[in-house]
Order: sequence, then C-alpha cells, then structure tokens
Amino acid sequence: MSNNHPDANIHPEATGPAKATAKAHFAPCDLQFYSGWFCPFAQRVWIALEEKGIQYQYIEVNPYHKPKSLLDLNPRGLVPTLKWKDKPVYESSVLIQFLEEAYPHHSPKLMPEDPYLRWKVRVWTDFITTRIVPGFVRFLGAQDEKLLEEQREEFLGHLKEIAKAMDPEGPFFLGRDFGAVDVMLAPWAMRFWAFDHFKKGGLGVPDKGKGGEDEEVWERWRKWVEAVKERRSVKETMSEREHYLPVYQRYADDKAQSQLAKALRAGKAVP
Amino acid sequence: MSNNHPDANIHPEATGPAKATAKAHFAPCDLQFYSGWFCPFAQRVWIALEEKGIQYQYIEVNPYHKPKSLLDLNPRGLVPTLKWKDKPVYESSVLIQFLEEAYPHHSPKLMPEDPYLRWKVRVWTDFITTRIVPGFVRFLGAQDEKLLEEQREEFLGHLKEIAKAMDPEGPFFLGRDFGAVDVMLAPWAMRFWAFDHFKKGGLGVPDKGKGGEDEEVWERWRKWVEAVKERRSVKETMSEREHYLPVYQRYADDKAQSQLAKALRAGKAVP
Ligand SMILES: N[C@@H](CCC(=O)N[C@@H](CS)C(=O)NCC(=O)O)C(=O)O
Ligand SMILES: N[C@@H](CCC(=O)N[C@@H](CS)C(=O)NCC(=O)O)C(=O)O
Repeated sequence: MSNNHPDANIHPEATGPAKATAKAHFAPCDLQFYSGWFCPFAQRVWIALEEKGIQYQYIEVNPYHKPKSLLDLNPRGLVPTLKWKDKPVYESSVLIQFLEEAYPHHSPKLMPEDPYLRWKVRVWTDFITTRIVPGFVRFLGAQDEKLLEEQREEFLGHLKEIAKAMDPEGPFFLGRDFGAVDVMLAPWAMRFWAFDHFKKGGLGVPDKGKGGEDEEVWERWRKWVEAVKERRSVKETMSEREHYLPVYQRYADDKAQSQLAKALRAGKAVP
Repeated sequence: MSNNHPDANIHPEATGPAKATAKAHFAPCDLQFYSGWFCPFAQRVWIALEEKGIQYQYIEVNPYHKPKSLLDLNPRGLVPTLKWKDKPVYESSVLIQFLEEAYPHHSPKLMPEDPYLRWKVRVWTDFITTRIVPGFVRFLGAQDEKLLEEQREEFLGHLKEIAKAMDPEGPFFLGRDFGAVDVMLAPWAMRFWAFDHFKKGGLGVPDKGKGGEDEEVWERWRKWVEAVKERRSVKETMSEREHYLPVYQRYADDKAQSQLAKALRAGKAVP
C-alpha cells in the first residue's frame, strides 16, 4: 500500500472519549489488539474487550498505510487483528465468539446460553454482515438522487427487519442484556449521523410519532439506538466527530479506496 | 413462486444412496428436516444429522415450487429449514453449530474444543460462503472462453488457499477427525464433476505429480477430496448423477433462476 492512499493521512490516533480508553491500555500485554480508532469493525472488538474487562494492549495502526507488524500477523492487513498466544486472530464477525470462548470466566457473557438464541444471534450477525454493512456503504456512496432514494429505502427496510426480530421489550436485541448482536451493530448506529451530514434527506428514520403504520417497529428501533448510545463501552470507544468527517467524506463522494468500498463497487463479497 | 420456474419440475425425490437414507427417516419425528435432495446447502445439514445420529424426519420439498408448510416456517422459502421444538431454524452455515449445541450429547463432535481452532473453523466457514460458493457458481456459469479462464483461475486459487490452511497430515481439515469445515465444503466437492461435464478444460485441478511448484498443496487437496468422498455420511446423502444433470445444466448455461444465481448476477450477497 503506497503513501498515496487517500486514507494514509488519516488522523493518527484516537481522540475524545476513545483517547482515554486507548491510553489506559498502552502497556504491553499478552493480548495485543491492532486497531484503527476510526474503524467500525475494530470498534466491535474494542467494545467486547471493554465489556468483558479483558486485559489487552491497544495498538493504533493505519490499515491504509500498513506497518509490517500488522502484515506479518494478517496478510490481508485489516484491522481488527488480535495477537493471542502468539497467534493472529481476525474477522470481527467471529472475534466476539472467540473472545467469549477464549476468556470463559469473564462477564458479562455476550452470547446467550440457549441453543435457539445462539442460533438467532448468528443468523442476525450474518444479516448485519451481508445486508446492513454493504447497505450502509452503498447508501452513503449513492450519488444521483434516484439511486439515493432506492438505497435509502433498501437500508431502512433492513433496519426495520432487524428491529422486528428484536425482543419486544428490549432495550437490547435479546432483551435486558447487552449482547453480541448489539456489539455487531452498535458501531454502525454510532455513524448514522454521516447520512444527516452528507446526504440530502438524511438517514430517514422517522421521528417519534411520525412512523405511520410502521410506528411500532420504529419505536422499537429508536429504543435500541438510545440504549446503545448510552452504553459505556460504546461511548468510550468513540472519537471526536471532526476526525471521522474526512474518512466518511470519501465514502459519501464514493471515492473511498478501502478493500470494502472497492469490493462493493465490483459487486464482490465484503472482505 | 409460479409453476413456470424452470426448476419446478426437478426430479421429485432422492435417488441412489440418498433414497435409502431418506426412507429410513420417513417417520414423523419432533425434529423436521425440510430438504431438497439436490441441494448442497441441505446436504450439509443432512451430513451433520447422519454423522451425529440425531433423530429426524426427512421432508422432501421443491424450494422452486414452495409448499405452504415451508413458507410458513421460513418466509424466504429456502432449504434447508429445520423445525425444532416448534420453531424454525435455517441457514446451513450456522445450522451445524446449532445442531452441535442443541444435541450436546451426540457424537462425534463436529466443532473442536479449543477456542483457537473454533475460531479457525468459523473463519474458514466464512471463506467457503463468501469465496468458494460464489466462485463455484460464477465458474460454472461462465460463458465465453476468457471469462471461463479467469473464473477457473480464481476458483482454483480459492481451493489452494483452503488446502494450505488444512492440517498438514489430515486427511480432514483439522486432522484425523471429520468436522464442521469438511461438512461445509463436502457437498461442493461432490459436485465438481459438473465442471468436467459442462466446461471445456474441466475443473482444472492438476493430476497427481502434475502440480508443478504447487504439487504439495494439490496433493493435500486431493487427499482431502478422497477422504471426503469415502465418508459414509457424504456418500449416503448423494443421489444419482443423471438427476443432478438438468439442475446443473441450467447453472452451466447461466440460466439458473435460484435466488443464489440471481443475487450473484446482480452483484449482491448470497441469500
Ligand atoms: N471483515 C473485516 C473487515 C475489516 C476492515 O475492513 N477494516 C478496515 C478498516 S475499517 C481495514 O482494515 N481496511 C484496510 C484496507 O481496506 O486495506 C472484519 O470484520 O474484521
Ligand atoms: N444461505 C442458504 C442458502 C440455501 C439455498 O439457497 N437453497 C436453495 C436450494 S439449493 C433454495 O432453497 N432455493 C430456493 C430459491 O432460490 O428460491 C443456506 O446456506 O442454507
């Protein structure tokens, strides 16, 4: 990856609440967490580590200007990558279960006990990976008005679908306890301001009382968003908005050069 | 789904070795398995059920001519779908773990105990879903010669990549024991004859001794294929080749109308 990559000059470190969290995990430790402060996939792992009180060393890297230490561990050079017992482990969608199983005595549990609920968590994790994440990138990258409308509608459809699958009381996906599906989705929800900032018409989730025949499902959705925004582990892994702006500007202009953005443009699976 | 669907007239039932297996599981049972004899995703679940000796009722349905009983359980109307304790469970990529957890006292275990190996199984399961399965469909559907070459090369690259990740001794992915990654991949390996049948140049895996600088990795791959082909649960869930032919003919002509084929043509995620 050359230094000409537009994201090579991304702000070099976490700011705001995430800064203190990174600082508190500066010391060398057996478990190393290669992260990018701006990365929603890395934030999933960060949230899980914080929730479970696992000891880790936070290592800030810029995956668009990959250091050798990262490439040696993970040839794809993506964050998040963990070094655990001298072995690399990566892929945020399976790292939550990994942490759960590698640190069985840490609480809270992010996976339920019941086999049916565990199945449900995995199916909806898959839905987030195959529907919500690509939908987010396509919606934010849509340029002409017609495409923007289409992508917004598709994206809001996905949000409604997952809201309908939630425990009716909540506030979290499976009910009172914060868990793996919440971890998977939270970083994206924390970036929804990007639609309001960059796109005409904004995200488009109706305000309270304005959801029409879908009001009930939107009410459930808003309840989830509020609960997630208040979650300590989520808040304390967020940086200041101004530093996210240039990164999402490139997505909004459909000029992002991440493997994710390029794969979606080519109609390929998310890396 | 109308009766005009080209697959609505698929052969109505399992034949060959799979016929006896289906017949042995004809009786009503709490666990219902909605399957299509020709479906590689359903075969994964079938293999797992047979391996673990779980009691189940085999219910043959044609997912291109969906009966109400299937749609009531799974609105997407895909096989495999299980009815377990009166609840629907589906998605073959997570059903293997589900069966493992819902029937904890059944052997053999298809998931390892070690957290790192469990992580490895999940990452490679994901690789099969996002790389090998779409690659199979694209390769088989490639029409002009240049595209065919490109798709073959990409596909063989994926096979080498997974072969390199295998336990060096084998014969199975993780070593001596048949497990979840083998279950996920076996149905596709059992359909590789389709490339030799329909495509100029065939699958393209080099014969023994002909792998050049990659001979070692192809040797490992061939060892895996042989072991899987001999596995009882795999053999006994296969039907006669002649009945698969019309199904794969449509893929080879790029005329398949499955949700999978249509999603790939549209550059979307696999359903
Ligand atoms: N599927 C991966 C995706 C991770 C990912 O795409 N991370 C981005 C940063 S947000 C990255 O490292 N990009 C580097 C690149 O695209 O080369 C996961 O879920 O962990
Ligand atoms: N992701 C699903 C895919 C299952 C699937 O595509 N099954 C096909 C038969 S092989 C089907 O039911 N197709 C019906 C349709 O496309 O409408 C899984 O892994 O279980």
